[in-house]
Amino acid sequence: MTGRLYGVGLGPGAPDLMTLRAARLIEGASVIAYPTLAGGESFARSIAADLIPAGAEEIVLDVPMTLERAPAQAAYDDGAARIAAALDAGKDVVCLCEGDPFFYGSFMYLFARLSERFEVEVVPGVTSVTACAARAGMPLVARNERLTILPGPLPEAELTARIAGAESLAILKVGRHLPKLRDVIGRLGLMDRAVYVERATLPNEVILPLAKAPEAAPYFSMILITKGDDPWL
Amino acid sequence: MTGRLYGVGLGPGAPDLMTLRAARLIEGASVIAYPTLAGGESFARSIAADLIPAGAEEIVLDVPMTLERAPAQAAYDDGAARIAAALDAGKDVVCLCEGDPFFYGSFMYLFARLSERFEVEVVPGVTSVTACAARAGMPLVARNERLTILPGPLPEAELTARIAGAESLAILKVGRHLPKLRDVIGRLGLMDRAVYVERATLPNEVILPLAKAPEAAPYFSMILITKGDDPWL
Repeated sequence: MTGRLYGVGLGPGAPDLMTLRAARLIEGASVIAYPTLAGGESFARSIAADLIPAGAEEIVLDVPMTLERAPAQAAYDDGAARIAAALDAGKDVVCLCEGDPFFYGSFMYLFARLSERFEVEVVPGVTSVTACAARAGMPLVARNERLTILPGPLPEAELTARIAGAESLAILKVGRHLPKLRDVIGRLGLMDRAVYVERATLPNEVILPLAKAPEAAPYFSMILITKGDDPWL
Repeated sequence: MTGRLYGVGLGPGAPDLMTLRAARLIEGASVIAYPTLAGGESFARSIAADLIPAGAEEIVLDVPMTLERAPAQAAYDDGAARIAAALDAGKDVVCLCEGDPFFYGSFMYLFARLSERFEVEVVPGVTSVTACAARAGMPLVARNERLTILPGPLPEAELTARIAGAESLAILKVGRHLPKLRDVIGRLGLMDRAVYVERATLPNEVILPLAKAPEAAPYFSMILITKGDDPWL
């Protein structure tokens, strides 16, 4: 009997925003896997830390941050091989994922490599999008409104077109793209409705009108713009 | 001291996909509020049922389903007044919300009425979008991909334009709009990539290629289309 792979969403950062299912799987795990970026601390592991059983085996995927994709993909090859060895030995493996595994999550690269050979269960998690909205007190979408989710690194012309054509908007991965995003949003006349959220639900969370956002934004930051023309909201 | 209002996301339906925070708040609640649609059973209450303390006071908002908005808004006025009375009496109120409170949730109408007078905490939940993706085994978005979320009741011309311009897509509230959506998606040549998901994470869940979806779809159904051109996925 081979083991089962779980891709477990941990939510946006506050440990009690993981699901009951995620907590139960982590507490019962004998093998845990998680990514680290370029040798740094694992954010995913830090969310789950209090629940990881003493003595659990830990498979660390150290993913290099390069513009070229091949080095990161080699790290996923290597990690998938180590996870496969545990699964082949009959052990279940719980892979820790920030947010939701299928929403900008690196677990997708493990899923692509392992889902045909092994049983995989993906446990969805609270995404940063609704966590930021909750913390900022901004209802996102009602009734027949549309929601557009855009990554901040997109080119300026594309961002301009997409933001202009959207209703409610969440712009992720703001980081060093903040000045460009602020320019685009300002030119479109949306600055009054734009809110900047950094590290939502964590102790060092920041929520500010975009116009007052700091110059240096971390990777885990977001801009929310809501339609806001429903007279009942 | 007035009480605090909690808008608690319960996730997509499986009770263990609510967050640890949601479960703790429900287990400790003395007053619970939730909506029902036109006198039907409350889906939100059914998700939380096993955790609601015996003897908790229950405030039921019976929301009529009419095309006109005024009758539903009168029900929110009435519900908000009853919740306000409990808060004024110093009791905390836990309002149960399917999915996430700020993502197409009726809690937004209570938030609009009560957030200026009372302390409100919104607890985000797992949305149906990532729950459907998890169950269907469909990674949603990676890297710099965009995600568009559209409600199925939008007019056909707008759906056609929005779907054509999107990368990954989640179309919610499919229900009786299924034939129209199937036509649009077929004409755009996207049928092979479109998956139909009904009641994700519940025992009567259905997952099918859109081409094989049933004629009669329930309100809680979704169509997912993913970009799917990343060679590493």
